[in-house]
Amino acid sequence: MLVNRRTIRIEWGDCDPAGIVFYPRYFEWFDACAAALFEVAGFLKGDLVARQGMVIPMVDTRSRFLIPSGFGDELTVETTITRFGRSSFDVQHRILKGTDLAVECSETRVWARMDPAGAGRLKSQAIPEAVIQALSQNTK
Amino acid sequence: MLVNRRTIRIEWGDCDPAGIVFYPRYFEWFDACAAALFEVAGFLKGDLVARQGMVIPMVDTRSRFLIPSGFGDELTVETTITRFGRSSFDVQHRILKGTDLAVECSETRVWARMDPAGAGRLKSQAIPEAVIQALSQNTK
Amino acid sequence: MLVNRRTIRIEWGDCDPAGIVFYPRYFEWFDACAAALFEVAGFLKGDLVARQGMVIPMVDTRSRFLIPSGFGDELTVETTITRFGRSSFDVQHRILKGTDLAVECSETRVWARMDPAGAGRLKSQAIPEAVIQALSQNTK
Amino acid sequence: MLVNRRTIRIEWGDCDPAGIVFYPRYFEWFDACAAALFEVAGFLKGDLVARQGMVIPMVDTRSRFLIPSGFGDELTVETTITRFGRSSFDVQHRILKGTDLAVECSETRVWARMDPAGAGRLKSQAIPEAVIQALSQNTK
Repeated sequence: MLVNRRTIRIEWGDCDPAGIVFYPRYFEWFDACAAALFEVAGFLKGDLVARQGMVIPMVDTRSRFLIPSGFGDELTVETTITRFGRSSFDVQHRILKGTDLAVECSETRVWARMDPAGAGRLKSQAIPEAVIQALSQNTK
Repeated sequence: MLVNRRTIRIEWGDCDPAGIVFYPRYFEWFDACAAALFEVAGFLKGDLVARQGMVIPMVDTRSRFLIPSGFGDELTVETTITRFGRSSFDVQHRILKGTDLAVECSETRVWARMDPAGAGRLKSQAIPEAVIQALSQNTK
Repeated sequence: MLVNRRTIRIEWGDCDPAGIVFYPRYFEWFDACAAALFEVAGFLKGDLVARQGMVIPMVDTRSRFLIPSGFGDELTVETTITRFGRSSFDVQHRILKGTDLAVECSETRVWARMDPAGAGRLKSQAIPEAVIQALSQNTK
Repeated sequence: MLVNRRTIRIEWGDCDPAGIVFYPRYFEWFDACAAALFEVAGFLKGDLVARQGMVIPMVDTRSRFLIPSGFGDELTVETTITRFGRSSFDVQHRILKGTDLAVECSETRVWARMDPAGAGRLKSQAIPEAVIQALSQNTK
């Protein structure tokens, strides 16, 4: 499977009064990392949305927080697909602090079309074969 | 167990270009709702932090998203404790849209003390009996 | 002019490692308070957007921060219109901590229509007379 | 004066239902860019905070929004100091979209020490000469 890596630098505003990352921030980064994985596979989320009305909403996410991080830390997020269903798929994110696993997350998303009739209404679709093939290639 | 309810009104800035709540926002609300539960039980998080250096960091959270919500929606979050361990405990949040379950979340947090020697270092502690008793009372 | 008041409760996740509100949060609240002012005047932003494609983007904002606030503080935001132009208007927000002015903000926004041809393209429009009249009434 | 440049990539979660950046996000980036300017001058904000209890809170910020941006856009932020007072200083940020000025911001911050006696209490200090000299050098 294709694996994408991103570097995250923890900013002052990402941290709470205990001096550690306020955990909802991790989900903001996971969402950006999922979009980035599709992008390196050749599917720009912006194009999918603008041209085809496709979105990939979250249906289930689970995250474990093993090592806290604070302002100035640089983390690496590794993102890959772990399962393709007909219209749903699983994404895994692993955040590394140096070589240690700091946070891990597995999520289930859906390949869905926005209903032009109303904001917020979504309809699941079969994931196109081209998407599955592009994301299933091995990282060079 | 004590159950606390909070009303959440979805703001424009909580929503993404698909017109639905950007899901990391839910975790911001869950964190505030967990603090609010302790507060109605008589333990103001601000006092715990300022006087005793206590925090309740997240170690594991899982959330399922069943019904999307958009700008202007009013949601009810019901929060309660589902388990007390020695130093860890489980919190459950259920977000209702009208009478329908829209989002549910179960999380494990730790009763921990901030290490005065360094920002970000945390040390788990036994949960005080008074905290367990106050949160275990039935909601009137 | 119509004045709307909202209570803001500072949450843990709104604060930075110095223990005070991370200032971009204030702008999130100001945006919600501007929408709330229109709502009490009878113009639900959600309806304006969904039915007419109207938005009120920010063109200029200035904020002064006089008194810091921290976790658990309750603040009152007073919001009113201070000027109506043809398609632009000025909004003023005053955040009170007790009776003290903690933050003040003046902003210029535009009454604009989203271009259906492309996300992100906006076109200014004359502010409807009904909007001006509703927002110009005195607060009872 | 030293000028620092940063690239910002607009993520899906940075944008609102109109498909453009929710403007409070710009202030999050400005705050990170101000910290980055100090860092390239040799003053790591994390060290200043941890070792000396120094922070640089915002007292006044003004921002003009000239060109909207949306998901996938890459912007350049140019940050520099425009004035040093005894304990306050002015920072300017210019966000470029290609070669066009998209957003500009001028802010006044204070060189302040956190009061160890209480979270949130800040005391202004004379800006050290070494800081002024490092930030006043020309960008090579």
